[in-house]
Amino acid sequence: MLELYFAPDTCSLATLIALEDAQADYRLHRVNLDAGEQRSAAYLAINPKGRVPALVTPLGLLTETPAMLVYIAQSHPAAGLAPLDDPFAFAQLQSFNNYLVSTLHVAHAHRMRGHRWADDPQAIKAMQQKVPESVGASYGFIEEHAFVGPFVMGKSYTIADPYLFTIAQWMEADDLDPSRFPKVEAHREMMRERPSVQRAVKAESA
Amino acid sequence: MLELYFAPDTCSLATLIALEDAQADYRLHRVNLDAGEQRSAAYLAINPKGRVPALVTPLGLLTETPAMLVYIAQSHPAAGLAPLDDPFAFAQLQSFNNYLVSTLHVAHAHRMRGHRWADDPQAIKAMQQKVPESVGASYGFIEEHAFVGPFVMGKSYTIADPYLFTIAQWMEADDLDPSRFPKVEAHREMMRERPSVQRAVKAESA
Repeated sequence: MLELYFAPDTCSLATLIALEDAQADYRLHRVNLDAGEQRSAAYLAINPKGRVPALVTPLGLLTETPAMLVYIAQSHPAAGLAPLDDPFAFAQLQSFNNYLVSTLHVAHAHRMRGHRWADDPQAIKAMQQKVPESVGASYGFIEEHAFVGPFVMGKSYTIADPYLFTIAQWMEADDLDPSRFPKVEAHREMMRERPSVQRAVKAESA
Repeated sequence: MLELYFAPDTCSLATLIALEDAQADYRLHRVNLDAGEQRSAAYLAINPKGRVPALVTPLGLLTETPAMLVYIAQSHPAAGLAPLDDPFAFAQLQSFNNYLVSTLHVAHAHRMRGHRWADDPQAIKAMQQKVPESVGASYGFIEEHAFVGPFVMGKSYTIADPYLFTIAQWMEADDLDPSRFPKVEAHREMMRERPSVQRAVKAESA
């Protein structure tokens, strides 16, 4: 049994979709970010990072979305969620997910989490103002250089797909027009039709 | 043959050390960041991200340090650089390297690369001021919760070790006293004695 600590509208959705894709045996625990539950002693005892998502496995805690996604793929091989035995293809997949975690998600985080990197309210405002440009540049890179299609890595669905889909949910809130990124937008529409995505979105809001 | 595009004093050192650990067949190409070579048409044709490191393999380009490190480990299995067949141990390793790429390296980057996230010079200055706090908090987390010892993941050397070592080279420049982080500092000293690290450092400055 896997236990996913999640919050709606965060990157935890990627892991939740992958759990559905893998038909994993899992249980959900909602963390109330508005109430600051992620900083409670009870939650810090589960995940000392004080953030979501966190995946509690029979062997212990895992955090960081790209790592959790590979774990789900590798521990549910029948689902075929990653080219685990092809070092180059696997590295390309990892490269994509690492770009999401370290560049695109980080650019996005400067809209709501600027306090992580500056104290001055004016600086935090300046960061917010640049988000459409920096996040837009990241989608531009994906559109031009990284997205193969119809799925992120090509003809096979992989753990890059739920991760891109999850982050792409934030485009409008980041003041980006999805029509500028037709490949990412077509992917988003295709993903919305997948039963695993629909089950995950429903579970998140249950 | 692998070809690593690198620059001294950047995270490319992690991949260079791993290439030495793996006894890989590789060639180095130095990219002159001070001259802006990373934005030249010639380099962008190799790596459209316009950054280092980049690893050109017989099958194509790889970027993102955690992905390149796993690629080196997986394509040189005799070196035993990652627990590739143990999904939980591998995920823990990935989680560590993902924390470095998406939290610690990102916090550090606000000292020299604030222009990625704000245009206002005062905001960029405010980001620089917070670097000792945000980078220090990341090392505090590693020290308290993530570092097993004597190597990052425990008794076996893995691809987490060259990556932590590489980033930890920047502590003093980020205005942090290494004595605050005794586990990381002991690791840094142990790593400096490793022949693969010494060969990589020497190759970098050749």
